[in-house]
Amino acid sequence: MKNINLNTEYLKNFITDEEIKKFSEFVYNADKELTGRTGKGKEFLGWVTLPEEISVSELEDIRLSADKFRIISEVIVVVGIGGSYLGARAIIEALTPPFKNDYGKGEPEILYAGFNLSESYHEKLLAYLEDKEYSVIVISKSGTTTEPAIAFRLLKNHIEKKFGKIGASERIIAITDSEKGALKKLSTQENYKTFIIPDDIGGRFSVLTPVGLLPIACAGINITEIVKGAKDMMNFINNENDIFKNPAYLYSAIRNILYKKNKSIEILASYEPNITYISEWWKQLFGESEGKDGKGIFTASVNFTTDLHSLGQLIQDGNRNIFETVLKLNSNKNNLTIPNSDNDLDELNYLSDKNLSYVNDMAMLGTIQAHTSGNCPNIIIEIPQLNPYYIGQLIYFFERACGISGYLLEVNPFDQPGVEEYKQNMFKLLGKSK
Amino acid sequence: MKNINLNTEYLKNFITDEEIKKFSEFVYNADKELTGRTGKGKEFLGWVTLPEEISVSELEDIRLSADKFRIISEVIVVVGIGGSYLGARAIIEALTPPFKNDYGKGEPEILYAGFNLSESYHEKLLAYLEDKEYSVIVISKSGTTTEPAIAFRLLKNHIEKKFGKIGASERIIAITDSEKGALKKLSTQENYKTFIIPDDIGGRFSVLTPVGLLPIACAGINITEIVKGAKDMMNFINNENDIFKNPAYLYSAIRNILYKKNKSIEILASYEPNITYISEWWKQLFGESEGKDGKGIFTASVNFTTDLHSLGQLIQDGNRNIFETVLKLNSNKNNLTIPNSDNDLDELNYLSDKNLSYVNDMAMLGTIQAHTSGNCPNIIIEIPQLNPYYIGQLIYFFERACGISGYLLEVNPFDQPGVEEYKQNMFKLLGKSK
Repeated sequence: MKNINLNTEYLKNFITDEEIKKFSEFVYNADKELTGRTGKGKEFLGWVTLPEEISVSELEDIRLSADKFRIISEVIVVVGIGGSYLGARAIIEALTPPFKNDYGKGEPEILYAGFNLSESYHEKLLAYLEDKEYSVIVISKSGTTTEPAIAFRLLKNHIEKKFGKIGASERIIAITDSEKGALKKLSTQENYKTFIIPDDIGGRFSVLTPVGLLPIACAGINITEIVKGAKDMMNFINNENDIFKNPAYLYSAIRNILYKKNKSIEILASYEPNITYISEWWKQLFGESEGKDGKGIFTASVNFTTDLHSLGQLIQDGNRNIFETVLKLNSNKNNLTIPNSDNDLDELNYLSDKNLSYVNDMAMLGTIQAHTSGNCPNIIIEIPQLNPYYIGQLIYFFERACGISGYLLEVNPFDQPGVEEYKQNMFKLLGKSK
Repeated sequence: MKNINLNTEYLKNFITDEEIKKFSEFVYNADKELTGRTGKGKEFLGWVTLPEEISVSELEDIRLSADKFRIISEVIVVVGIGGSYLGARAIIEALTPPFKNDYGKGEPEILYAGFNLSESYHEKLLAYLEDKEYSVIVISKSGTTTEPAIAFRLLKNHIEKKFGKIGASERIIAITDSEKGALKKLSTQENYKTFIIPDDIGGRFSVLTPVGLLPIACAGINITEIVKGAKDMMNFINNENDIFKNPAYLYSAIRNILYKKNKSIEILASYEPNITYISEWWKQLFGESEGKDGKGIFTASVNFTTDLHSLGQLIQDGNRNIFETVLKLNSNKNNLTIPNSDNDLDELNYLSDKNLSYVNDMAMLGTIQAHTSGNCPNIIIEIPQLNPYYIGQLIYFFERACGISGYLLEVNPFDQPGVEEYKQNMFKLLGKSK
């Protein structure tokens, strides 16, 4: 079976094989610090071997809980922020249809809360839930993070009024610490079903724990396949020492070489609109891991072809501080062709009976050529198919590359001290006593 | 009545009043080139005086067409890309609720097509429309732009099969050139109602033409108020010569001063999720206007507080090449307060009975303080209320500031030569003959 592959043919004018070879020893050493758990932030390296540590019974437990929620719910509300939100949403949006008008029990709508402090958003959400059969997944290690804690207070009140205390406790699952914290305590008290967030896995690396897997299973997606993809990618990376054949090694080396050449912005480009949240997840993964100590590549994303009519101009001709990583999906076999027109006023008959996917592929190729010739280096990530298995491969590939890349940059990729500063200010302004 | 205001108190450590004063003459001259229509790209300056040129009867014509579509449609599909898509979507999403379960005739769902080449997206869209009463607005100056032309071919076929030729022609409105082009010709032939895209207004400046106003009116939004807001802002900018009091002058000066100080990335930050597409519109406006000749600020956006748990780390502590522009909405009076909890396990009782908006405001203020003290300059755009009038002010403010800012950068802010390159490559790959 094919794996996700890194295509570097459009980098030739920007990086030589020699440069990559020179970098390879740094890459091997960085990866050794990851797998040997000796590097910076080593207490948060549980994700490295996670795909082979998830047991069949754990997956079964998650799937059974998800199936129960799917049967009783028209809507499932997932409460979380940052790493307790983006991974699940990314995979759910990538693998479910963009237009859904057949919601109901058996195929619930997945909604999100607690990822912002918008009064209007939460007010409208509660109003929407008023006449719905719904359930709640609340995700928080501590249970006291402001955004999800507020959202969960609101939802807990709402669902208890609607279904009573006992009915509510059957409709709430908490994903939290194994022993300590407010949410764990509450769950014991209220008799909520719980799943555990491991101590050695930080938020942005947690999508393959119940944090991601439970909401994803609730959307009807095959989580066993996701884990299998991640595991295969892990084994592939572990066993491939040739930097030119190991996508995680190659990607982390290339990014750092380009960064040293003053390419300070990386844009992740995709050509399918349902990939948008994969990009959001990726932005957090790399941005939060590397953006520290005055260093780090700025991570941004574009959705093509729409953004070719927006940021396209700037990517083509603007400040030459950008490089581009393209998520190239091999076309799914769909069935939509461009119809012929008698008068051909719109001059599209040269495409009659062609699939849209074919036109999209040519737009991608044309764009890669254009941006490369405009001095914007392009890295292509080839994904054989958009399905749970390859999403699993992609997730693990990015996580491993991110760990290595952060070590190459000589930062601790597994902390986020800067996130505390706005919180401290906010607490002071809100008059929080401790 | 208050106007949109630029608050610069958090810039004190980064820019002196003296620096701004020194810049003021360049700003006045740049604005003179805009209003006098003597600068680069002067053939595309129709938007400068547009707000006072839209007649009552034009607005009435747009509104009547919209009302007709609202009555007969459960779904209205807007076909367009780039500037023929982003402005309408930005305003519609900003001013309509995030959860809508009361769609139907009288309150149609607004969907979009032709802004990507995804086969899966368009296939699912057509399936969704199968059992819906729907109508189509197609927006294209030429009628031959690949993405909207393909989407419109598909939709034209679909709607004609569903409602017959005559039924379809009553359910299609085209917004296109006044005389020439494929879509104009087709509209005459098929007897579609049409609205005109003026020759002297480019796509990204077209939201106050029928391109934006018709879809916006279809969503039930008061377009007269939007135009009134834009006109008031235009008059305010025209009559205020003090650079410190004129928000368009001040914003364009500040961006260019920061750019000269090696701040090469501007992020637009908002604290309400429904503002997301305003940021997308803004990214195109500034990115496509300024990103050329090897110059230009990279435009990106963040949605807080969610992205504080993502890019927040990088903004706080990463590479110091970023400045931040905050859309500060004065809180709407909503009615959602944080409930009290008997056991206070989540430690939120210090916020009991407080509005979420209040907590959101304190998060914003805490973040502005944190990022500023982390050496990321913050510009605050104060918006008195999120309503059509102030959205109109905001749109015109950004457009005028963008024109001035582009002239300060010494580029032509009104062309987009780089967008052609991917198209040429794509046509070659697709075997287009001419």
